[in-house]
Amino acid sequence: MITVLAGGVGAARYLRGQLQTAEQVTAIVNTGDDIELHGLHVSPDIDTIIYTLSGQSDNDRGWGLCDETWTAFKEAKELGLDAWFQLGDRDIGTHLARTSWLQEGMSLSEVTTRLATARAVKCRVLPMSNDPVRTHVTLAAEGREVGFQEYFVQLGYSVPISGVRFAGADVAKPAPGVLDAVENADVVVIAPSNPVVSVGPILALDGIYEALSARKDRNIAISPLIGGKALKGPAARMMTELGERADAVGVARRYRDIVSTLVIDEVDGGLVEEVESVGVRAVVAPTIMSSLEAAVELARVTVASVS
Amino acid sequence: MITVLAGGVGAARYLRGQLQTAEQVTAIVNTGDDIELHGLHVSPDIDTIIYTLSGQSDNDRGWGLCDETWTAFKEAKELGLDAWFQLGDRDIGTHLARTSWLQEGMSLSEVTTRLATARAVKCRVLPMSNDPVRTHVTLAAEGREVGFQEYFVQLGYSVPISGVRFAGADVAKPAPGVLDAVENADVVVIAPSNPVVSVGPILALDGIYEALSARKDRNIAISPLIGGKALKGPAARMMTELGERADAVGVARRYRDIVSTLVIDEVDGGLVEEVESVGVRAVVAPTIMSSLEAAVELARVTVASVS
Repeated sequence: MITVLAGGVGAARYLRGQLQTAEQVTAIVNTGDDIELHGLHVSPDIDTIIYTLSGQSDNDRGWGLCDETWTAFKEAKELGLDAWFQLGDRDIGTHLARTSWLQEGMSLSEVTTRLATARAVKCRVLPMSNDPVRTHVTLAAEGREVGFQEYFVQLGYSVPISGVRFAGADVAKPAPGVLDAVENADVVVIAPSNPVVSVGPILALDGIYEALSARKDRNIAISPLIGGKALKGPAARMMTELGERADAVGVARRYRDIVSTLVIDEVDGGLVEEVESVGVRAVVAPTIMSSLEAAVELARVTVASVS
Repeated sequence: MITVLAGGVGAARYLRGQLQTAEQVTAIVNTGDDIELHGLHVSPDIDTIIYTLSGQSDNDRGWGLCDETWTAFKEAKELGLDAWFQLGDRDIGTHLARTSWLQEGMSLSEVTTRLATARAVKCRVLPMSNDPVRTHVTLAAEGREVGFQEYFVQLGYSVPISGVRFAGADVAKPAPGVLDAVENADVVVIAPSNPVVSVGPILALDGIYEALSARKDRNIAISPLIGGKALKGPAARMMTELGERADAVGVARRYRDIVSTLVIDEVDGGLVEEVESVGVRAVVAPTIMSSLEAAVELARVTVASVS
């Protein structure tokens, strides 16, 4: 039984590999990126994982569904809607279902199970919490706080930040099954996701950090930073801007109290000593999941390293 | 200056004709059929009017936009959403814009003006109220009350009703401009819309009925019932089930205190005496608007009859 703390694309690719090598895989997915858009409840990380694991993600675009069309979004824009978050028609179908079910009183967990089941996803997909947690970042220049999607999508993460806050995390409870999945996993893997805004919100939930610390020896993380860069997204620049090292050493520092081991990419072989001086064992392996085979091999190496 | 009390398709077709013959036309549109669907605010009568007047309605289907696709709706259904109200992708574009703007704090009036302007509609389109009014009907057999769209769309108005209620109408205020448009119109026309559920909610708003009564001589209605039948929708069966005559005489009885004149179709020439015995002057004219020309001619006859 493997439990994976997951953000978006990197986690989704890892999970695809993990599912080939383990019977029971549970993903605990960040919902700090969730956003209410034009009345619809959008859960970007959950959708990325479900779309990827169902084989329906658009690999060229890097997000969203394959065979997508953009009729509704185009129409809304032509009507004058200031729509900076692209919504495909198939994707809107997901959001209509999610929003409707939430409004009927179902929890995000229940909705997520329905969506994953409807798309024949074999992984158990748990939102980290059924309570709203929303990631905000403070723009350094203006001192103004904006929602994560505004920073990520609207501003294209092109401006420096000076802080990150997970609004609601202080009162949000882990969703049903989440703590149990952490406590009873053979191995907990922190996926190669943004440590600050993808994994950070999960760790901020009541009891998660403690549960992970208590079983640190059987927890392992995969560094999303390769040669000091993220394959996608603002992890490196966010860490730099928050005064951290934007490399595997910075990642090791973040996770030092909750994992025993960090998988770092082959290009970072020179960082082994520094990572280990932080108190985290380093395992060097190819971490770029450019194929399913590469993801399977990464999952195999990762789990074997702490089993 | 002509003001038209309007429901959906019949009113939209009439307005298309009216706009050819009058400089200033204001439509006061029923919002009792509005519904929140899967997070989106849908205003069916407003949309029918805007889509029709912009030349973008789908005439074969009889509702919605032309060149429509159904990707989002199909996806949501495949995911298991119990979606009985069809939403096209272009149509969803409208709802995304409306919902977003309402959530930003704009009134339904402001949103409607934006949507009408964006689609280059020349008619001034006013929702009857910015406050929620929702039409409910009581199903005769079960005594259960359901929302209008549930009755109209989901049940296909195939079951007898025993009552109609406009929830919220007791506290809803007419939208800005509505009372003024009634009071200062050269002619007020009650469009050939369902008297019970399309015109009824407008008349139920505070001050409207009194304002109409006070200027009854310059108000005229067009009977939506032709030979005892509605061209579309449940007007005839609703009136029968509510104990009214389902013909031009029944319509005259409904409007006797607020209009001086009723336009009835040529096939109902035999009802002139009965209509007039109710206290409403009858004008016989072709009322089926199968072409723009027919609608223009109906608008011309209608306005001339009380000018």
